[in-house]
Amino acid sequence: MRVLGIDPGLRNLGWGVIEVEGSRLSHVANGICHSTGKDLAVRLLSLHSQLTDVVARYAPEEAAIEQTFVNKDGAGTLKLGQARGIALLVPAQAGLVIGEYAPNQVKKTVVGVGHAEKCQVEHMVRLQLPGVEIAGADAADALAIAICHAHQSRAAGGLAAALRKAAS
Amino acid sequence: MRVLGIDPGLRNLGWGVIEVEGSRLSHVANGICHSTGKDLAVRLLSLHSQLTDVVARYAPEEAAIEQTFVNKDGAGTLKLGQARGIALLVPAQAGLVIGEYAPNQVKKTVVGVGHAEKCQVEHMVRLQLPGVEIAGADAADALAIAICHAHQSRAAGGLAAALRKAAS
Repeated sequence: MRVLGIDPGLRNLGWGVIEVEGSRLSHVANGICHSTGKDLAVRLLSLHSQLTDVVARYAPEEAAIEQTFVNKDGAGTLKLGQARGIALLVPAQAGLVIGEYAPNQVKKTVVGVGHAEKCQVEHMVRLQLPGVEIAGADAADALAIAICHAHQSRAAGGLAAALRKAAS
Repeated sequence: MRVLGIDPGLRNLGWGVIEVEGSRLSHVANGICHSTGKDLAVRLLSLHSQLTDVVARYAPEEAAIEQTFVNKDGAGTLKLGQARGIALLVPAQAGLVIGEYAPNQVKKTVVGVGHAEKCQVEHMVRLQLPGVEIAGADAADALAIAICHAHQSRAAGGLAAALRKAAS
């Protein structure tokens, strides 16, 4: 299974694609979609176009996205929301299953604790994806989200198998 | 010139298309794109698909969207932001010019005062678009936004003409 992780943002939208074969993870690609300028619609269009290209090029079968942290900065939340709308739309347009994970769930899955520092997350991403070259902090987060999804899916799959066994 | 007005929302996204010929406005169509269900990505995909159909069917040349009111409800702002991302993306994908207007600017242009009630806005929309049948409150707001854009464009056009005249 190939998983696309997305760390949404209006200026920098991180993405990372990993391959999952049983318990083995491997790195496929990662990067950051940038958008700049004053015109919000043009920036959203650019993010949509760049992320659509990523999906077309790496053909992921599932996607995972970070649940956005809502804070008191309403204008910031709105900006992020608009970018997140695009980040959800693109995999939905490609018919992908999309998992959503809270930031502390991602950290807990990848590092083992929910309050891990960013550098710990990146360290564990490097350990779990040997040889990976990371395009930047947002791409590292996106890879972590993809890894989280892989573990959650495997856990869900393992549970399903256990239930099937129990029922038989 | 044909203008598409959009009142963004995740559950109900209002839209209205008007025709502008000099100082004469006429109604083309209006409606509401609905999205329901638990899956956010599916809802955004549905809004994108419905609004894309509207643009394809009525072929507007310009678009106008309400600037979102940011309040202290972070979760609500995030939801609205995600829907607004789609509402901006669709006209941008069609290559339309997009105007953004604050709610009180829309009211001031359509009713004459920035603190007008919703019913006054709908009343003035009916007066300026004779014979219009309005699909609901969100569609009325969308028509008001389109009317605001028509007036602003005309004002900008008039100003440009005056400047050209002054320069000649």
